[in-house]
Amino acid sequence: MKSRLIHEEHGEKTFAVIFDTDDEAMSGLVAFARDNALGAARFTGIGAFRDATLGYFDWMSKSYQKIKVGEQVEVLSLIGDVALKDGEAAVHAHVVVGRSDGTTRGGHLIEGHVRPTLEVIVIESPLHLQKEIDETSGLALIRLYEPEGCHGGAYKTIANRRTSGREADR
Amino acid sequence: MKSRLIHEEHGEKTFAVIFDTDDEAMSGLVAFARDNALGAARFTGIGAFRDATLGYFDWMSKSYQKIKVGEQVEVLSLIGDVALKDGEAAVHAHVVVGRSDGTTRGGHLIEGHVRPTLEVIVIESPLHLQKEIDETSGLALIRLYEPEGCHGGAYKTIANRRTSGREADR
Amino acid sequence: MKSRLIHEEHGEKTFAVIFDTDDEAMSGLVAFARDNALGAARFTGIGAFRDATLGYFDWMSKSYQKIKVGEQVEVLSLIGDVALKDGEAAVHAHVVVGRSDGTTRGGHLIEGHVRPTLEVIVIESPLHLQKEIDETSGLALIRLYEPEGCHGGAYKTIANRRTSGREADR
Repeated sequence: MKSRLIHEEHGEKTFAVIFDTDDEAMSGLVAFARDNALGAARFTGIGAFRDATLGYFDWMSKSYQKIKVGEQVEVLSLIGDVALKDGEAAVHAHVVVGRSDGTTRGGHLIEGHVRPTLEVIVIESPLHLQKEIDETSGLALIRLYEPEGCHGGAYKTIANRRTSGREADR
Repeated sequence: MKSRLIHEEHGEKTFAVIFDTDDEAMSGLVAFARDNALGAARFTGIGAFRDATLGYFDWMSKSYQKIKVGEQVEVLSLIGDVALKDGEAAVHAHVVVGRSDGTTRGGHLIEGHVRPTLEVIVIESPLHLQKEIDETSGLALIRLYEPEGCHGGAYKTIANRRTSGREADR
Repeated sequence: MKSRLIHEEHGEKTFAVIFDTDDEAMSGLVAFARDNALGAARFTGIGAFRDATLGYFDWMSKSYQKIKVGEQVEVLSLIGDVALKDGEAAVHAHVVVGRSDGTTRGGHLIEGHVRPTLEVIVIESPLHLQKEIDETSGLALIRLYEPEGCHGGAYKTIANRRTSGREADR
């Protein structure tokens, strides 16, 4: 996997992240996110896998069921984001793959071995997003908090408490 | 649903819009677009629904057939845009969802109840896009007009007549 | 097909590219990319096709098998990128489409006839990406090279050799 910064301004960075044959996509995205200290990013990508393991979150067992894709497939859609969990970059990616007959499979990306390429565009935002454990599901979810003392409408643009806390310290 | 502005420059704004369990995605996106006066935006997202209603536009009846998804599914791909119709923000979103066995369903998003999260990144552009009723289909479609007196090639970058009209007024 | 520049700054341009009924999407995207001299871009889109031809890259024969979609379908996800191959813009697009019963098909986009609309947002980056023939697959793939004399880690952000060569000439 190789990456290249293709645009930067006012703290927003756009990277091309290109995976080669046999690269594993999920661990590569996590390594890229940590090496580049991403705190809030989004990405899209296309390419192909020689095999993959997808996940479906089972609401009863509160765990991911694994779905094996044991064949060469087109990666039709890779969409995801990066947020911080306990100070480390956490990558969340969903994928739709296409089989030889045009039927598709999809799920939460657990593991995907690239062949011959996976082309991902990652856009980093200068502010950070924070993940916290959701008690009901047990999953780490992005949480946006209203700053203390501010009780605006549910749809109002609001700042993250941690970030505003940090800003207040300066 | 909560939102946060994570980047802004020269009129382009990037928002994280995070839905919680039981939030309805489509009405939430419309409310977000109107509250933030979006006139041209695009978005992508991932997450999960506990149930959803999708649409397929039937060319014969010129109406949307409803496709019910009555189970917990991963939201593998949410892609859409915002444009103005009669001066109000109109949201157009398509979705692919993944079932427990990895098979997928998809369509025009009519309604989706989130569980436990839906993470959407919305990017607003400073210029506006306009929708108008297409006589053949009866649907409101984005229309780009060539400014009067300009008859460039079909692939030329052209301005929207309404916008250029407004600009001419200044 | 019509297009409109909806945002520009520091060399990054955002275009809305709107296809009409009977427009062919792939040739339209290639024409748009060449007319606007795109050297590195990404795009997402939604809409509908009255028919399409998708591709699955067969690793044995090293060629694309064609998958015919002979019916009106929703374009649920169009994701792709643009890079230069032998100095000309090459468009790489994957698509997921939805049928009347909500089942999906997907693949590498070879050809798609729009009905009634296809709304694509294209974001151009100021730097270029280069494609080269991959000897194993025979496909033209995006290649990022490390600049000579620099042997950083695999995940380091690195410059494209050709670009840095051109920059060195200035």
